[in-house]
Amino acid sequence: MKLTAQEVYDKLMLEDKILEVKGQIKFYLGDVSIVVKQRDVVGNIMQEWLEGWLKQNEISYKLNSNTQMPPDFYLNPDDLTSELLEVKAFNYGASPGFDIADFNAFQSEIIEKPYMLHTKYLIFGYQMQEDGYVVIKKLWLQSVWEICRRMENWPLNLQIKDKVVHKIRPCTWYSNGKNIKYRPFENIEDFISAMEQTVYQNPKTREKSGEWLKLFLRSYEKQFNEKLKIPRWSDIEDNYIVKKEQKKE
Amino acid sequence: MKLTAQEVYDKLMLEDKILEVKGQIKFYLGDVSIVVKQRDVVGNIMQEWLEGWLKQNEISYKLNSNTQMPPDFYLNPDDLTSELLEVKAFNYGASPGFDIADFNAFQSEIIEKPYMLHTKYLIFGYQMQEDGYVVIKKLWLQSVWEICRRMENWPLNLQIKDKVVHKIRPCTWYSNGKNIKYRPFENIEDFISAMEQTVYQNPKTREKSGEWLKLFLRSYEKQFNEKLKIPRWSDIEDNYIVKKEQKKE
Repeated sequence: MKLTAQEVYDKLMLEDKILEVKGQIKFYLGDVSIVVKQRDVVGNIMQEWLEGWLKQNEISYKLNSNTQMPPDFYLNPDDLTSELLEVKAFNYGASPGFDIADFNAFQSEIIEKPYMLHTKYLIFGYQMQEDGYVVIKKLWLQSVWEICRRMENWPLNLQIKDKVVHKIRPCTWYSNGKNIKYRPFENIEDFISAMEQTVYQNPKTREKSGEWLKLFLRSYEKQFNEKLKIPRWSDIEDNYIVKKEQKKE
Repeated sequence: MKLTAQEVYDKLMLEDKILEVKGQIKFYLGDVSIVVKQRDVVGNIMQEWLEGWLKQNEISYKLNSNTQMPPDFYLNPDDLTSELLEVKAFNYGASPGFDIADFNAFQSEIIEKPYMLHTKYLIFGYQMQEDGYVVIKKLWLQSVWEICRRMENWPLNLQIKDKVVHKIRPCTWYSNGKNIKYRPFENIEDFISAMEQTVYQNPKTREKSGEWLKLFLRSYEKQFNEKLKIPRWSDIEDNYIVKKEQKKE
């Protein structure tokens, strides 16, 4: 059976009632069996769990052989450009701790494969109780721009080590805004604007910045027969700051 | 029942026949149960497993509240200076991938608590099969100096990032020597000599190097009523290079 990413989400929520079931990680070796109580282990195995779930429900999928880049699953094995699904999980008691992608790889990947931008992120917000029981507190299905934001000096929320840009990091897209400074992107166009500006700001990609947007737009149009109109970052960057008066509401 | 670290090792090997049993990590959530096939997860949970094993066998232990430093377990809960046990695990198909300790923390810790040096390392060399079955290929009980070595320009095998010394890393102590350049330390004295030289070589600890050895020896003697004689690093460093003719044997 073929399902879209949205149908996978609906089935998990409505049929499996994923927010109401319990889970546990068990490890046995010889005679001794333990319940694993390490939170980060859950994050690592939700993807394996979803593969088990897809199998058990006889839902078609193909695994991505490149485990470093999204998506984890192709839900339409006959067309690897549509219904791409990436699985993420994080401890709902903290902030989203997963990475979106390596920035340098991502900026070149979306030129080569613009359909990657429409990968859906199926995100599990889990809690592990003291006794090791796992519950899913929230489940989301999001596009990449809906879980990304700017930061103070960069148009994306980036992990920067020793002045070198590494991973694109997510925002807390589900926050009500009281403690957040920057809101998630509203649409793909603004996200691409932030990508372009980051290609320019990042010393490692700056030499590509002259042509980057043109190459991307050409590639996207070829794929989707649609011309995107990308605003300049300087025209929109202030829109993504949560103003103080709004915070007070 | 109280057991020493050595008795724990013997019980695992002889009674439980740990090298002959099989294990598996299972995760269930709702109706779907999967076998976890991620190798690194095993490394993280062997310590939890050993705690389960100690409980099941009614062996006394106390957990260390500081999870960042050795030991994981105190096997003599009435005397937290003896029978210290640290659990490590690594994929036997690769090299030992665990860290011994953060160098800066370790060099000050062994002055404050010289008995830390006699922590025994219970090390599981595991294999995870394609189908997710876990087997323990080797089990060792080692002192810290038996699993440490020098490297080319440093007296210890250190993880160095951007010229800053971070973790002390283990050697492949079980290797027959054909592919190794440097052999493990032979005794605590030579290990302390390497520690002292590293305190000196490491910019972050250099200012302590004038007094470090004196402070350590005083503390060790107070604890164990034994005066260690520490050789100078320059007198022993060549002993730890595996010579070419030896390699050919």
